[in-house]
Amino acid sequence: MDILHYQKDFIDYLESKKWVNEPKNLYEPIDYIIKLGGKRMRPILTLMAADIFSGGYEKAMPAALAVEVFHNFTLIHDDIMDDAPLRRGKATVHEKWDINTGILSGDAMLILAYQYFENYEPIVFQKLAKLFSKTALEVCDGQQLDVDFETRNDVTIDEYINMIRLKTSVLVAAALKMGAIVAETSDENANLIYDFGLNLGLAFQLQDDYLDTFGDPETFGKQVGGDIIENKKTYLYLKSLEVANEHDCKKLEYFYSRKLDDNSTKITEVSRIFDLNDIPILIKEQIQDYTERAFETLSCMNISEESKVSLRNFGLWLMNRSV
Amino acid sequence: MDILHYQKDFIDYLESKKWVNEPKNLYEPIDYIIKLGGKRMRPILTLMAADIFSGGYEKAMPAALAVEVFHNFTLIHDDIMDDAPLRRGKATVHEKWDINTGILSGDAMLILAYQYFENYEPIVFQKLAKLFSKTALEVCDGQQLDVDFETRNDVTIDEYINMIRLKTSVLVAAALKMGAIVAETSDENANLIYDFGLNLGLAFQLQDDYLDTFGDPETFGKQVGGDIIENKKTYLYLKSLEVANEHDCKKLEYFYSRKLDDNSTKITEVSRIFDLNDIPILIKEQIQDYTERAFETLSCMNISEESKVSLRNFGLWLMNRSV
Repeated sequence: MDILHYQKDFIDYLESKKWVNEPKNLYEPIDYIIKLGGKRMRPILTLMAADIFSGGYEKAMPAALAVEVFHNFTLIHDDIMDDAPLRRGKATVHEKWDINTGILSGDAMLILAYQYFENYEPIVFQKLAKLFSKTALEVCDGQQLDVDFETRNDVTIDEYINMIRLKTSVLVAAALKMGAIVAETSDENANLIYDFGLNLGLAFQLQDDYLDTFGDPETFGKQVGGDIIENKKTYLYLKSLEVANEHDCKKLEYFYSRKLDDNSTKITEVSRIFDLNDIPILIKEQIQDYTERAFETLSCMNISEESKVSLRNFGLWLMNRSV
Repeated sequence: MDILHYQKDFIDYLESKKWVNEPKNLYEPIDYIIKLGGKRMRPILTLMAADIFSGGYEKAMPAALAVEVFHNFTLIHDDIMDDAPLRRGKATVHEKWDINTGILSGDAMLILAYQYFENYEPIVFQKLAKLFSKTALEVCDGQQLDVDFETRNDVTIDEYINMIRLKTSVLVAAALKMGAIVAETSDENANLIYDFGLNLGLAFQLQDDYLDTFGDPETFGKQVGGDIIENKKTYLYLKSLEVANEHDCKKLEYFYSRKLDDNSTKITEVSRIFDLNDIPILIKEQIQDYTERAFETLSCMNISEESKVSLRNFGLWLMNRSV
């Protein structure tokens, strides 16, 4: 089954739901963010895993929806914390309404996510809810680390990898495992697909870091150089501090201690330092490494060769994206 | 078993837990709000219900903790929305740390609340989590209605009662029903104790409205007149608009359309209008009415007379409090 097919079916399912209840001021922002679009990567993973392990994905729809609604809850609250005006080219919820609305509508979405699991019988329900709670709490931990790193000057690459594992990868991994749980496959398969997702999620986030600076402005959805403008200590920055000479390090630290009105020189200069120090090559090696680790777990999995190819293709699709 | 005994055991349980994990900036605010005190009324209800329906309450501790942690999550997020500087005489979380910390630590507490249900086997787990999700979403609805009412001038008493039902009563009712679920009593008993809590919760909130204006400043924990200062459209205000003459109504509307630096005249004048229109008597009749409705559900319940007396005494204790 191809990815676009899962995507279309998921979007149809999502749009068949009634999102706006009373009180309207609570539910209209939920309807807004949910329909703002996006690749729907996480719910696609849930459907794909269910399909691979049980030859069907219809029954995984509520779990896929839980993952997507949770992800959108994190976007609303993160956008408040980052004071972000735009999300997918449109006004963020707290910008279109206000911060209080963003807080409360977000809270309601976290609860709604749990409610979708009520479609499953008690044992599957408990497995899903346990995995979900563990994952959701890890995502909060990751977000807190991300905030903490903003004011720290001694963040290591290991710490950074741990942060993106928590903030991004565990949800990718859990999305896949939820499909496995709904399909009632073996615990071994469920854990392997989780590990596949964890490594793929790390590769995905590093790819995101790369594209944010070196992506094609024509095809990359966000502003190229956004992380540099925001002084985000991504892999590119941290790796540079590790391998560059003192002069380049000083220059990087200088740029990353300031917020400027005109960022064009900063973006050019920082990108040049990254380039000079082969950071694009080094990060691509890392991405390759995590992708291969993900593919290695596939070999241990008790599924058809065809399914392994599907998962592998999904990984390759994700890694070769330009957006 | 007396109330103070449940309270002490619950506080011991709460203090035996390790609240601060890594990252510290996420969990220290949780530790702070959880240990800020309070009557612990809601978890006491869970323990009491479990004790009444199964002759033991030890196994209800995790469910009681879920209720208390959820309640404290709502306090953190509500305090941000209300811009409140103080909670139980101490700095609120967003005041002691910042708004972002309040948002994220609150989110983590909502998830932690769900995790405590993992102590129960799948069928009890699902019953608890379903009731909890339904209740938590109703509390969000109630909070949104409360916010909506601030800018509306046509709120009816029925709408107000519905708002406090959602914002306050359903959690009191759910706290009791969770004790019943853990005790694995009949669905009938569980639903009756829920109804008991719903009516008692309404009486409790109306009592709160009354004490906020007419409480003894010596014993009332908060500033007497706080609702008047904040132009809160409580039962006292809405009932006045219903029964007072045009002159008094105009005066009330005048006062409630302003925020003042010196509130002493406003508090005196508004209290006088309430008094002149017998509002303290009318609200006490309402409190009495809801309390009696709560007590009526007790007669249908399949429990010992002694247990009925315990629940009745708890109701009387709650209604005769001055704080």
